[in-house]
Amino acid sequence: MKIAIVLFNRANYARSKTLMIELANVKSVELQVICGASMLLEKYGKSYKQVEKDGFSIARKILSTFDGDSLASQTLTTGACLNALAHVFSDLEPHLVVTIADRYETIATAIAASYANIQLVHLQGGDISGNIDDKVRDAVSMLSDYHFPSSERSKRRLESLGITPERIFNYGCPSLDLIKKDWNDTDILRLANYGGTGSKLELNSPFILVCFHPVTTSFGKSGEDVAVLLASLMEFKTFRKIILWPNPDAGTDDVSKTYRIFRESNHDHSFSFFKNFSPEDYSILLSMTSCAVGNSSSFIREGAFLGTPAVIVGDRQVGRETGNNVLLTSIDRDAIVEAISRQVAHGRYEEDHRFGQGKSGSLIASKIIELFKNGESNSRYSNH
Amino acid sequence: MKIAIVLFNRANYARSKTLMIELANVKSVELQVICGASMLLEKYGKSYKQVEKDGFSIARKILSTFDGDSLASQTLTTGACLNALAHVFSDLEPHLVVTIADRYETIATAIAASYANIQLVHLQGGDISGNIDDKVRDAVSMLSDYHFPSSERSKRRLESLGITPERIFNYGCPSLDLIKKDWNDTDILRLANYGGTGSKLELNSPFILVCFHPVTTSFGKSGEDVAVLLASLMEFKTFRKIILWPNPDAGTDDVSKTYRIFRESNHDHSFSFFKNFSPEDYSILLSMTSCAVGNSSSFIREGAFLGTPAVIVGDRQVGRETGNNVLLTSIDRDAIVEAISRQVAHGRYEEDHRFGQGKSGSLIASKIIELFKNGESNSRYSNH
Amino acid sequence: MKIAIVLFNRANYARSKTLMIELANVKSVELQVICGASMLLEKYGKSYKQVEKDGFSIARKILSTFDGDSLASQTLTTGACLNALAHVFSDLEPHLVVTIADRYETIATAIAASYANIQLVHLQGGDISGNIDDKVRDAVSMLSDYHFPSSERSKRRLESLGITPERIFNYGCPSLDLIKKDWNDTDILRLANYGGTGSKLELNSPFILVCFHPVTTSFGKSGEDVAVLLASLMEFKTFRKIILWPNPDAGTDDVSKTYRIFRESNHDHSFSFFKNFSPEDYSILLSMTSCAVGNSSSFIREGAFLGTPAVIVGDRQVGRETGNNVLLTSIDRDAIVEAISRQVAHGRYEEDHRFGQGKSGSLIASKIIELFKNGESNSRYSNH
Amino acid sequence: MKIAIVLFNRANYARSKTLMIELANVKSVELQVICGASMLLEKYGKSYKQVEKDGFSIARKILSTFDGDSLASQTLTTGACLNALAHVFSDLEPHLVVTIADRYETIATAIAASYANIQLVHLQGGDISGNIDDKVRDAVSMLSDYHFPSSERSKRRLESLGITPERIFNYGCPSLDLIKKDWNDTDILRLANYGGTGSKLELNSPFILVCFHPVTTSFGKSGEDVAVLLASLMEFKTFRKIILWPNPDAGTDDVSKTYRIFRESNHDHSFSFFKNFSPEDYSILLSMTSCAVGNSSSFIREGAFLGTPAVIVGDRQVGRETGNNVLLTSIDRDAIVEAISRQVAHGRYEEDHRFGQGKSGSLIASKIIELFKNGESNSRYSNH
Repeated sequence: MKIAIVLFNRANYARSKTLMIELANVKSVELQVICGASMLLEKYGKSYKQVEKDGFSIARKILSTFDGDSLASQTLTTGACLNALAHVFSDLEPHLVVTIADRYETIATAIAASYANIQLVHLQGGDISGNIDDKVRDAVSMLSDYHFPSSERSKRRLESLGITPERIFNYGCPSLDLIKKDWNDTDILRLANYGGTGSKLELNSPFILVCFHPVTTSFGKSGEDVAVLLASLMEFKTFRKIILWPNPDAGTDDVSKTYRIFRESNHDHSFSFFKNFSPEDYSILLSMTSCAVGNSSSFIREGAFLGTPAVIVGDRQVGRETGNNVLLTSIDRDAIVEAISRQVAHGRYEEDHRFGQGKSGSLIASKIIELFKNGESNSRYSNH
Repeated sequence: MKIAIVLFNRANYARSKTLMIELANVKSVELQVICGASMLLEKYGKSYKQVEKDGFSIARKILSTFDGDSLASQTLTTGACLNALAHVFSDLEPHLVVTIADRYETIATAIAASYANIQLVHLQGGDISGNIDDKVRDAVSMLSDYHFPSSERSKRRLESLGITPERIFNYGCPSLDLIKKDWNDTDILRLANYGGTGSKLELNSPFILVCFHPVTTSFGKSGEDVAVLLASLMEFKTFRKIILWPNPDAGTDDVSKTYRIFRESNHDHSFSFFKNFSPEDYSILLSMTSCAVGNSSSFIREGAFLGTPAVIVGDRQVGRETGNNVLLTSIDRDAIVEAISRQVAHGRYEEDHRFGQGKSGSLIASKIIELFKNGESNSRYSNH
Repeated sequence: MKIAIVLFNRANYARSKTLMIELANVKSVELQVICGASMLLEKYGKSYKQVEKDGFSIARKILSTFDGDSLASQTLTTGACLNALAHVFSDLEPHLVVTIADRYETIATAIAASYANIQLVHLQGGDISGNIDDKVRDAVSMLSDYHFPSSERSKRRLESLGITPERIFNYGCPSLDLIKKDWNDTDILRLANYGGTGSKLELNSPFILVCFHPVTTSFGKSGEDVAVLLASLMEFKTFRKIILWPNPDAGTDDVSKTYRIFRESNHDHSFSFFKNFSPEDYSILLSMTSCAVGNSSSFIREGAFLGTPAVIVGDRQVGRETGNNVLLTSIDRDAIVEAISRQVAHGRYEEDHRFGQGKSGSLIASKIIELFKNGESNSRYSNH
Repeated sequence: MKIAIVLFNRANYARSKTLMIELANVKSVELQVICGASMLLEKYGKSYKQVEKDGFSIARKILSTFDGDSLASQTLTTGACLNALAHVFSDLEPHLVVTIADRYETIATAIAASYANIQLVHLQGGDISGNIDDKVRDAVSMLSDYHFPSSERSKRRLESLGITPERIFNYGCPSLDLIKKDWNDTDILRLANYGGTGSKLELNSPFILVCFHPVTTSFGKSGEDVAVLLASLMEFKTFRKIILWPNPDAGTDDVSKTYRIFRESNHDHSFSFFKNFSPEDYSILLSMTSCAVGNSSSFIREGAFLGTPAVIVGDRQVGRETGNNVLLTSIDRDAIVEAISRQVAHGRYEEDHRFGQGKSGSLIASKIIELFKNGESNSRYSNH
C-alpha cells in the first residue's frame, strides 16, 4: 500500500514524525513523503533537511510559496500547491494521503486527494482556534475519510459536524511522542550550539521562550502587536528571551521586520533569535523555560503535557482547548507583564495528558493499517 | 457595497439569475459578475453569452478549464480558478462574494474569498447527493459566512454540521423563479428554432427529456452507463428524445463520445441533441415532457415544482431529497424501461413547493442587504 | 549523463524517435522522456501510448492543455507547461534537455531548461514558415546551446541569427529515418484496420491525403478555410479522401467542427477521418497518395524525401523551404482544384534529400555524446 | 489606441518613465500600466508606489514572485507572470504592449503579447552582458515587432540577429532622461532623509555607491562574492559606503544574508543600506559619488552619461558596451581595492552620450505613434 504524507511546515512534521516512523516500518507500506511551502525556504530554516536527516527520503519537493506577505499570496500559494499536487498524485498514485491540521496550504492536499478519489486521512481535526485556521480545518474535515483528532473534545466536535463516529479515532497528538523528558548534558550542549542571531543560546540561567505568529484575520496589525510583546518582555531583564521566527502566514514580514528593527535599535544582549529547532530539542526548551509567551499552539499542547507555564497573547488561539498551564491575555503591555509575572511565580504545572499519552504515532499507524486491511477503504462518503 | 458572484456553469446561472437581477436593482450595490470554466467554452454552449444577453455586464471572464477529461484535470482546473480569482478579488475588492452549490470549481471561489477575509454567501448548501459534490458542498459550507439552502431538510442538515442557525436562511432555490408557466405559441416557436444536432426540435408530439452527467466517483464507467441509457430510450419509439450534452466533469468525454458514436451508427431520427437552453426555455421543456430521464438535479428540483414525472438513473443523486415525482433506478436497461413506462403512464404529478415558491431571488437579495446594513458582517467565525 | 526530451505532440515524437532510440542505447545515458500537452489527450489520439508501445518508459506526463481553443488558452497552456517543467527538471535533474521545433508549448521547455542552467539542444531550428511558429522557433534558438537544424538553408539562417557556426550541426530531420520504403501486404492490412470515423481506410484505390491545421495568426478564419478545402476535395469524386484531425492550436475547434458538420450533412462515403497514425504508417500513406493536400509540414519534409506530389494551401507554411514536389496555393476553391489536378496529373517526383538522408537520429546522438564528453558543455553563452 | 506597459522592477520603471509620461500625454492613447513581481514586494521597496506617486494609475498589479531564491523559483515566477498576463491582456485588450530589457520575467510579457497577436515593442534589445539576461533579451527580441535599443552598437547587434533594420530605432535609453543635473540643497535634504538601515545618509563627505546583484548563472556563489566585495570596501575607511539591496534574482537571499551578517557582526558606522531611490535621486548619488562599485548596469549607462568613475566587479556585465568611465575587475579583494583607488584618484570622467541624449522617451513615443498611424502594425513577421 502506498501512503503519501504532505508536509508544509515544521509543525506539520512534529505532529506526524512518529506516525511516519511507524508507517515506514510496516513492510507492506511504501511511504511517500512530500515536502512543500515553507519547509523548502531558507528563511524558515529549510526544515525538509531535518526530515532527510531523520532518515526519510523525500519523494517530491514542491516549491510553492508566493512572496508578498499578503492575503492574496496565501491564496496563490494554495493554488500552486494544488497544481503541483495534481501532478504529484498522478505520478505517485498513493492509495492513501495523510494531511495534518489546519494551515492554509493544507486544503490543497485535501482537494487534490479527494478529487482524485484517493482516501484522505486528517490528523488534528475538530480543534477550535482563532484565525482562518478554523475554516480551513473544518473544510478539510469535510473532504476527509478518516479523522484522528488529538483530544476527546475535538473528537466530540467532529461528531457535532456530522461526521460518523466510526470514522473518528482519538489517539492524541503525535507531537507529544517526541517530547524528551530525560535530556542530559549532551542535549544542553547541542542546544547551546544552535545557530541563531543575537546573543548565544545559554540555558544555565532562567529564560522566557517566545513564539508569536501573525494573525491573518486581523492582517496589518501584527507588527504593532509584536512591538507590544517586545515591550513587555523588556521588563523581564533578568531573564534571557529566546525568540522563534514566525510561520509564513500573511503578516509574517511585519513580525520579522519589527524584530529586526528592535534588534538594530536595541542592543539588549538578553534576546536571541532562532529559526528552527528539532521537535525534540524544542521540547527540552519547553521543559526548561520559566514561561512560554506568544500564540504558538505548542505552548498549549506540548505545554499541557509538560506542565509548562504559558501566556497566550491575543486572538490566535481564542476558543482553543487548553489545560491549566495557560493564561490568556489581550495584546496589552501591562496585561502581558502581569500574566508572565504570575506564571513565573507559579512555576511548573502538573502534567496534563488530555492531548495524548506520548504513543499517538504508533496507535494511529496501527489503526490505518487495520482499516485498509479490512477493505473499509471502499465505504466512501458514508461519513456524510 | 460591492457584491461579486462567481458562475462556473449554466446551472450556476439558473440558480442565481433572479438574485442577480434583484441585487443589480439595488442602488447601493455594485454587482460584479465573474464567469469562468465551462461558461466560456464552445462545447458547453458559451453560456456567458446568455448572461450578457440578459443585460449583465461581465466584470471578468476567467478561462480556467484543463482539457483531458480526467480526475487530475478537475484538480488543475480548480487550481487555475484559484489563481485567477486571487488576482480578480484583489482587483475588484468585493465586500461580499456569492458562490453557488457544489461543482468542483466552486471550492476555489470559497477559498479565494475566505482567505482574503471577504464575506462569503453560499447558495444551495446542505443538500445530499452522490458524487464528489457532497464533499465539495460541505467544505464550501465550512468556508462560508451565510447560508441560503433550498429546502427545510437542507437547512436542518446545515445545522447538523454545526453551523449557527442564525446564519442559515431557507428561501428556496432561485432557479424555480425562472419557471415559465404561461408559455405560449411564441415560446414554442422559439424553442423549435434552437440549433441542435440530429433531428429538429419538434414539440407537438410527446417527448422524453434526457440529461445525463458523468459520475466522477466512478470515473471510467460513464460511457457504458450512457450506452445502457440509450438502449433503454430506443424502446420508446413513438416518443422524441431530446438530449442535453453533459457538464464538463471528469468522464464527460466518455458520455459525449458514446452519443456521437450512437448518432453516427444509428440514424434514428427521433433523437435530437442540444448544448444549452435558457433556464426559462428549459422549464417549458420540463413542463411539457412526458418524462425526464437521467441524473440532472433539475429533474428533482424544478421537476418537483412542476410535477414533472422523472426517472433518476444511477448513483449521482443518491440520497438527495426528492418529491413524489421521482423514481430512482439503477443503470439497468430493463429497470430504466420499466420506470419510464410507469412515469409516462402516471402523467404529471401535483406541484410540490418544497424547494421554493418561485420568489427566492428576491428574498435572498433582501436578506443579504439587511444583514450587511446591520453590520453583521463583522461577526465572522461565530458559526464555528 | 541524464538527457531529458520533452514531447508535446505526435510530430515532436516523429521528429525525435530515432534519436531517442539511439540515446537509449548508449550505456552512459539515462534517457528521461517527458510527454505533455496534446500527447495526453483523447481527442488527439493519446499519442503517448505510442511512445510506450515503442518501448520507452515515460518519466513524467504533464497534463497541461487549457480547453477553450483561443489565443489566451495557448498562453495559459504554455504557463502550465512552464510550471510543471520547473518541478520536473528540479526532480529529474537532467544534464541536458532536448526540445523540438516550434510549437507554442516548446518555449516552456526552453525557458525551464535555460533558467535552470541546464544545457539545451534544439532540433529543427532555423526554418521559416508562417504562423506564430516563426517567432517561437527563433526565440527557442536564442535560449538554446546547441542547434540541429534539418537543412543547409536552415543552418545558414541560424548563422544569420548570430549563432556561432561551431554550435550548429545539420544532420537532417530524424522524421525521415522513419520512412518505410519497403512496405508490404502486412503493412497495408494493418493500415486498413486503423480505427477512424467515416468510411473505412481502403488503399487499393487512389486517394488524397489531407491534413490541415489552424493558422493562429489569422485566428477566427480556420472554419471557413477548411470549408473551402472540403468543397475543393468534393470535386475529386473518384478519389478517396483520407483526412487527419488537426493539432491543438487556437482555431482547432473551428476546423473540427467544420469536419463534423460536413460529415453529418454530407454522407459522402469517400471521406475517412483519422486521429493518429504511427510515423511509419503515415510515411506509407505519403508514399501511396496521389496527392497530399493541406498545410502539414510533413508534406514538405517527408514529401520531398519521398517525392510525394503536394498542394500546400494557405499561409501556414509561407516562406518555408520546399522541394519541387510542392505547389503553393491560396485558400480558393478553384485554385486548389487546379493545383490538385496538376499534381495528380504529374504523379510522383524525384526524391529530394535536402532534409536528410534517413540517418539523422544516429548522427545527432553521436554528436551530442561527443560534445558532452569533451566538456564543451561548460562554454555557455559563447553563441551570443 | 490602447498601449500596455509591463513593469517588473524599479529599473524597468526608470528605463520607461519618460516614455510613459509622453504616451500618457497623447490624447488618442490610453496607457495601461501593469506592475508585477518585485515592484509589489516590501523587501524591494514596493516601487509600484513610486509609479502611483508620479501620477500614473496602475491598471493591474500582478503578484507573481515565488519565494525560495532558487533557479526553479525564477521559472515558477515566470510561469505565474505568464498566467496572470494571459488574463490581463484578454481583459484590457491592448493594441500594443511595451516590454523592457532583459529580466527573466520579461519573457512572460513577450509570450503573452505575441501569442495573443498583440504588437510588441521591446526597449533595450541588442545589448550584451553576462548572466541568463543575454538569452532572455535575445529571445524577447525574436518575439518582438519593433525594437528600441539604447546604443548604436546594440542596434547593429539586433541587425546581426537577422532583424529588419526598418524595425530598429536607436533613440537611446529613457533612463538618461531622468538624470537630474541641476540638483540643489533641497534635493540633498530629501536624500538625507531617505529611510535606510545602518547609518544615516550623509552626503557632505565623500562616499562610494555600491550595488551588487547576484549572478544567476553562477548560482550559489553570490554570498561569497559579496563578502569579498565588503572586505574590499572596508579598506576605504574615510569614505561612506552607500549600499543598495539587490534585485530578486536567484541568489539574492545569499547577498542579503551576507549584508545582514556583516551589519550585525561589524558595527562600522560608515555603511548605510537602502532599498529604493527614485531614479532622479539615484542620479544625484551617481553624480556625487567618488566611485560606483558593483555590477549594476546603471553604473555603465547613467555612469557614462554623467562621467561617474565606476568599478564593475565580476561576470554580470561581461561583454557589455561601456564608456571610458568603467574599470572591470574580477571578484578579488586586491583587484577591487586597486580599481577603486584608481577611480577615486582619477575623479569624474568626461560625459559620454553613447546611450542617449536625455530625450529618449519623447523620441520613442513619437515613433510609436507614427508607426501605428501609418498602419505599419499589420506587417507582422516581416522582421524574420
